[in-house]
Amino acid sequence: MGELNIRHAVSGDRDAIWRILEPTFREGATYPLPRDISREEALAYWFAPGNAVFVAEAEATIVGTYYMRANQRGGGAHVANCGYMSAREAFGRGIARAMCMHSLDAARARGFTAMQSNFVVSSNERAVKLWQACGFRIVGTLPGAFMHPEHGAVDAFVMFREL
Amino acid sequence: MGELNIRHAVSGDRDAIWRILEPTFREGATYPLPRDISREEALAYWFAPGNAVFVAEAEATIVGTYYMRANQRGGGAHVANCGYMSAREAFGRGIARAMCMHSLDAARARGFTAMQSNFVVSSNERAVKLWQACGFRIVGTLPGAFMHPEHGAVDAFVMFREL
Repeated sequence: MGELNIRHAVSGDRDAIWRILEPTFREGATYPLPRDISREEALAYWFAPGNAVFVAEAEATIVGTYYMRANQRGGGAHVANCGYMSAREAFGRGIARAMCMHSLDAARARGFTAMQSNFVVSSNERAVKLWQACGFRIVGTLPGAFMHPEHGAVDAFVMFREL
Repeated sequence: MGELNIRHAVSGDRDAIWRILEPTFREGATYPLPRDISREEALAYWFAPGNAVFVAEAEATIVGTYYMRANQRGGGAHVANCGYMSAREAFGRGIARAMCMHSLDAARARGFTAMQSNFVVSSNERAVKLWQACGFRIVGTLPGAFMHPEHGAVDAFVMFREL
C-alpha cells in the first residue's frame, strides 16, 4: 500500500464510503445500527448534521472513513466523538490506527480537549486493543448492552482519552 | 400535593413542559445542552422522533415530565434511556422518584431489558442519589466531561440498571 492520505470527504465520496460501511453494518457485530439499514439512512448517519467526515486514500482508492462530532452539547461540547471504518480488503494495514491518530490531531485543532467512544462492543477485540494503543482507556462497562448476532448479549465499553 | 397521575404527553402539554424545562436548561448545570436553547429546539429535543413523552400531574397541574427512547439502535435497542425533569416549585415532593419508578415499568412494558443514563453530572448529587435509590449503579465515569457553569470541569457518570 502506498502512502495514506487523509482528507475531508466530499459528496463524490459517498459511493466509496457506502461500499466501506455496508458490509460492516450488514454484519451487525460492531455498530449499534439496524443490520438492514438502507444506503440513504447509513450515509445520513455518517454525515449527520454537525459531523466532520474524513476519508483515507491509498493510491487514489478510498480505504477508510471516519466522522467526528461533539459528543454532547452545551457543557459537554468539549469532548469529541468519532466513528471509524476501514475497507475490509485493507484490514491489517494500519488504516484504522492512522485514522485514529489523525482524528486526535483534528480534534485538538478544533479545540476539543478529550475524546470519547460511547459504545465499543467488547467482542470487537481488535478495536478495543487499537483504541487502547491510541491512548484510550475503558472508563465504563455497559453490561450486556449489545446483542451480538453470534455471541448474544455482550458488554460494551465506554472509552475515553484526554487530548 | 394530591395524587400524582403520570400519563402520555399530548401536544397541548407543550407550554407546561417548556415552563418546566426552561429554568433548568437556562441554569445549564445538569443537561449537556446550550444554555440559550430556544423553546422550539428544547421541545424538539424532548419530543425527538422515537421518544415517548410523559407528564406527571398533581391537581390538574403538570409538575414533571420525562421522555423515554431506545438508547441505541440495532443490537443496542433493548436498552432504554430516559430524561426526567420536575417543576422547581415541586422539588422535594417525590415527583422525580415517582417518574423514575413509572419509567421502569413503562420500559419493561415496551420490552426493554435494561435502562441507561448516559450523562449524569456528578455534581448533581440529588439526581445521582435518586437514581441509585431506584436501582441504578454507576458503571462509568467520564472524567471532566461536563463544564459546570460554577464548578468548572466535573465528572459525569454513566448509570445503568437491568429491568
